Amino acid sequence: MRDEGFRYQAVEKHIMTLVNSEALKAGEKLPSLRNLSRQLSVSISTISQAYLELEKRGIIESRERSGFFLSAGAMRLPAPASRPRPALIPTISKRSELIQKVLEALGNRNLLPFGVVCPAEELLPAKTLARITAATLRSNPAQMMDYAPVNGNLELRRQIALRALDAGIGVDPDEILITSGAMEGVSIALRALTRPGDHVLIQSPSYFCFLQLLENCGLRAIEIPSSTSGIDPQDVKNAIDQFDIRAAILVPNFNNPDGSLTSDAAKQGVVALLEERNIPLVEDDVYGDLYFGEHRPTTCKSFDRRGEVLFCSSFSKTIAPGYRVGWMIPGRHYSKALDIKTTTNICTASPNQLAIASFLREGYYERHLRRLRNAVKNEMEALLRSLHRHFPQDTRAGFPEGGAAVWVELPRQIDAVDYFYQARALGIGLAPGTIFSTQDKYNNFIRLSCNGIWNREMEQGMEKLGSLAKQMAEKQPRAVG
Amino acid sequence: MRDEGFRYQAVEKHIMTLVNSEALKAGEKLPSLRNLSRQLSVSISTISQAYLELEKRGIIESRERSGFFLSAGAMRLPAPASRPRPALIPTISKRSELIQKVLEALGNRNLLPFGVVCPAEELLPAKTLARITAATLRSNPAQMMDYAPVNGNLELRRQIALRALDAGIGVDPDEILITSGAMEGVSIALRALTRPGDHVLIQSPSYFCFLQLLENCGLRAIEIPSSTSGIDPQDVKNAIDQFDIRAAILVPNFNNPDGSLTSDAAKQGVVALLEERNIPLVEDDVYGDLYFGEHRPTTCKSFDRRGEVLFCSSFSKTIAPGYRVGWMIPGRHYSKALDIKTTTNICTASPNQLAIASFLREGYYERHLRRLRNAVKNEMEALLRSLHRHFPQDTRAGFPEGGAAVWVELPRQIDAVDYFYQARALGIGLAPGTIFSTQDKYNNFIRLSCNGIWNREMEQGMEKLGSLAKQMAEKQPRAVG
Repeated sequence: MRDEGFRYQAVEKHIMTLVNSEALKAGEKLPSLRNLSRQLSVSISTISQAYLELEKRGIIESRERSGFFLSAGAMRLPAPASRPRPALIPTISKRSELIQKVLEALGNRNLLPFGVVCPAEELLPAKTLARITAATLRSNPAQMMDYAPVNGNLELRRQIALRALDAGIGVDPDEILITSGAMEGVSIALRALTRPGDHVLIQSPSYFCFLQLLENCGLRAIEIPSSTSGIDPQDVKNAIDQFDIRAAILVPNFNNPDGSLTSDAAKQGVVALLEERNIPLVEDDVYGDLYFGEHRPTTCKSFDRRGEVLFCSSFSKTIAPGYRVGWMIPGRHYSKALDIKTTTNICTASPNQLAIASFLREGYYERHLRRLRNAVKNEMEALLRSLHRHFPQDTRAGFPEGGAAVWVELPRQIDAVDYFYQARALGIGLAPGTIFSTQDKYNNFIRLSCNGIWNREMEQGMEKLGSLAKQMAEKQPRAVG
Repeated sequence: MRDEGFRYQAVEKHIMTLVNSEALKAGEKLPSLRNLSRQLSVSISTISQAYLELEKRGIIESRERSGFFLSAGAMRLPAPASRPRPALIPTISKRSELIQKVLEALGNRNLLPFGVVCPAEELLPAKTLARITAATLRSNPAQMMDYAPVNGNLELRRQIALRALDAGIGVDPDEILITSGAMEGVSIALRALTRPGDHVLIQSPSYFCFLQLLENCGLRAIEIPSSTSGIDPQDVKNAIDQFDIRAAILVPNFNNPDGSLTSDAAKQGVVALLEERNIPLVEDDVYGDLYFGEHRPTTCKSFDRRGEVLFCSSFSKTIAPGYRVGWMIPGRHYSKALDIKTTTNICTASPNQLAIASFLREGYYERHLRRLRNAVKNEMEALLRSLHRHFPQDTRAGFPEGGAAVWVELPRQIDAVDYFYQARALGIGLAPGTIFSTQDKYNNFIRLSCNGIWNREMEQGMEKLGSLAKQMAEKQPRAVG
């Protein structure tokens, strides 16, 4: 079953590569089932299944008696092809002020929601979770009022341990530490592992809160490229050959902002390289459950043999951002992490832990996830079509295999921070690429988040954003220093 | 009114000094109303009011036509008289391992609750808060699911600003930053102010989590004595004259573990001294609302003119420890604190903030506090009587003017860590003095918490603890190095 699933996925991926690389153009005919079956040594029924799936997603369309063709509407923008490579130099993040400004706007709920990575309220299980929380409060008022254990509620840790198997992780509930969101896990991990002045390896682009965290901890960033296929072990090797690196923070599954997915083989390679040099890896897997393919991608933690991967995740991108419930599996750094958790805030809130534990135990999570993934994927399709329709020709954006954001390269003349402010004035939220690196490599990139809904207002917003981009691109190219 | 309240309190304090110093012994007659009125230049009605209050507390009793006498049952143990003075040297806390062991036991709910400072579940407003939380979830499901603003919910900040006036603090809601408990505030403050290797001024004894925090941040503790009258500005002066101190963490109101209260004059003196040297003060006021007198004591923050006092508090010792809702007023360090809050955990949980905000807005807090203070004070009376009845003669313990713990000096032969383990084997929780200092100054001290209830089981527990102390004290005095 699993093998067949993988093969079917492989076919889909193969076609998407042809689409993204523009080897196959809108309206062109796809290889016949029989030919592709021979080429890929896969059964015709598997090819057929993949085609039907691509058809459902609106990427290809069948024409009677003629075969399958690449949809015009589903035409994707090419992925940013020659990604700007970050310089391999230690840098101290000085982005906090800009990030604060962007965060203020991101928190503004009157803007169109392309700025915040957070599922739309219509998609969150608000009523179910409210009902469960109220029931838990009624049935166990004393426990809800009391401090939780520092490491977290046991039932919640059990439920997490059960689901960790999907991510290739076999873990005892007692090796899990509940945190107030995944960011708290990453923060605890970094404080456990480093001292000011240390070098930390990160992807470029990287989630801006990681850059802020490095700045707050007095750490230096060593940025390695995050390409459409995620992290390349060779880049990790180059970095650790050149610098004394104390820790790495990586997001192998659907990195925020670029949505890149690192292959299983590359994950294994990265873990082996870091292990060899005794460099602990902080793995943020907060988007891992938001895959669009048939199977959940695995994790670096699944290849960890020595307890040097500190795995962090949460329910903030799936169940309830506002509940602040996450977890970490700190491996051999457990005791230090527990210590830092104590002095960070004693424990994570009790009612929140108990409500999420019930939500998981009662089986709501899996059903909810299926609906959410589907909604986010559909929105991403719509968003990419809209980008193609409205944006300047040399705009580029790949189609991620999961996550909740699209990373868009605008024409070089456009400064993303200017663009951000002008979009805000139009009532539209987005995140400028500038805040995702300590270096000025993404000044013409933006991140558009997909919260799982698509409506006329959003389509109109994209049209406005497109016009704005065209206007700004038509101005004289600014001098590039 | 306030003046009269102060005078009445002064009389009570005067009598308590006579009691605690053993100037007045059990069964002895108190000065007549008329005499004391003359001595203290206070009206007879004020003296009478004070006597009636002391009678209600069981400390004195009136005998018909003979006046007032010191109750035998209310006899207090003398306060630890010659407090061990900590050495004025920078020390690195190495207590984490011991503290983890103690914390495990503290978290054990099968033990008699003299270990954990946390109101008894019967005293917490569990049902009211559960009802309010459920109602908030129903009426506003989307907001409860969403991230809160990084600085916290506005209504909650408003309610806190209104009540800050009681503590002498005039504050704009926008100067308040919501945290997940007071410990998070102290942790954020310290991370905003210091770098590893810095010296931090603390009281001795001090809350053990502060010592852990210093250790986790690589900081050196400079300990100054916390006497029965709290912090002496002269000790602060000595310390800052000798060391380059980067920040201070003080608990002027009912310091945990010794319950000491620093006078308003001393608070003002401390703030002036620190201000003069530009040393920021992290003030933890988590017990400030748990005063036994007529008025809430003021705070160092009330004397802060330059925004150098970072005030931290929470509802963990009053409403709901498990909700993890606290706040800080970081003064001129606001922006840095906000930044660190972001990278600690993005924001504090939404439903928790909204429920506590409603609890405050609907006026439950004040009613609840009156009941809680009364219960804790009554328990403390009972606990001290019990100590007097069952413990070795040279046991010492003062009667704090607020807070939720009694700091007990056992005979010198007793090692508090041994005592802790043996008490645990008897099913009784307590905290060994050893964990409240980086120096070995409190190895024969214990902290007994008062959670606001008293029953036969607790009386029996105290009897067992007393026997244990007598047994251990009778053994050969251990060699003192």
